[in-house]
Amino acid sequence: MKRELPLADVYTVLEPGPVVLLSTSRQGVANVMTMSWHVMMEFEPPLVGCVVSETSHSFAALEETGECVLNVPTVELADKVVSCGNASGRTVDKFKAFGLTAKPAAKVAAPLVGECYANLECQVRDRQMVTPYNFFVLEVVKAWHDPAVTRPETLHHRGYGRFMVAGREIVLPSAMR
Amino acid sequence: MKRELPLADVYTVLEPGPVVLLSTSRQGVANVMTMSWHVMMEFEPPLVGCVVSETSHSFAALEETGECVLNVPTVELADKVVSCGNASGRTVDKFKAFGLTAKPAAKVAAPLVGECYANLECQVRDRQMVTPYNFFVLEVVKAWHDPAVTRPETLHHRGYGRFMVAGREIVLPSAMR
Repeated sequence: MKRELPLADVYTVLEPGPVVLLSTSRQGVANVMTMSWHVMMEFEPPLVGCVVSETSHSFAALEETGECVLNVPTVELADKVVSCGNASGRTVDKFKAFGLTAKPAAKVAAPLVGECYANLECQVRDRQMVTPYNFFVLEVVKAWHDPAVTRPETLHHRGYGRFMVAGREIVLPSAMR
Repeated sequence: MKRELPLADVYTVLEPGPVVLLSTSRQGVANVMTMSWHVMMEFEPPLVGCVVSETSHSFAALEETGECVLNVPTVELADKVVSCGNASGRTVDKFKAFGLTAKPAAKVAAPLVGECYANLECQVRDRQMVTPYNFFVLEVVKAWHDPAVTRPETLHHRGYGRFMVAGREIVLPSAMR
């Protein structure tokens, strides 16, 4: 069902600002966290900056393995997205507890979250701002999407449990990429 | 009409990933550009990372003055947002050409864009990643919003002139800030 997404199009997935699920694998144990603090930094090869709290279990995995997957959920997964944000991988197997499917990635050990419409396999490229900002620069090395989902109903965090769901689309005569 | 927005709430404005207008003032000349590559990096004081192309006129202003305003437009301003993205401040007075109102800010020389529902006055705090990523870390030092706009119909760029307009809101029992 999923097809490869050209790396040059990765920005179209992340630029609208969706909540993502960041998945990792450390010593064979998969984990997943909810994240909204990410930014495109280059078109191709696609670079993505993200802030991962140093208090999170995922931070340690990302630091140690240098790999993760950014998975983009749509509104059907809202309850699971919030559950992943409210629990810690230290004490909970979130894939099992919240009914998420870990699928093998092509280029990284971290799993794809099968239920998400897009999955971006990433390797850490630059750690110079991990201190003091917990800011990692990731390179997307392989990307997948469900081509049937052309207007994904992504979630956009407004704070304290409020989420905006992606609405209608407009097309304007932009010369911008 | 605009009221001060507590600095601790700035993230609720930028976290959903809206297209913003970045305004600057250099040698008394105001300019404004369209930008989507931004990220929250800290709650309070609010830090925002953003990528500003080194080829843009705004890059030079931001480098030189260390100040800007991030203005958040809603869908009524879509045409002006695209126009600002398609023109350069080198050759066009965009405020005049596109009918935008430059209003004085409280703490920076860069102007507020009056038509935008939220305005974040920023100072550059960290330039260590300007090379090679054109990535600036900004601190929001004063913030304004129109309190009547509680569910802003923000624009979210999907590439090549496609914009998603913010849709409905859902509230979930999140323990996340």
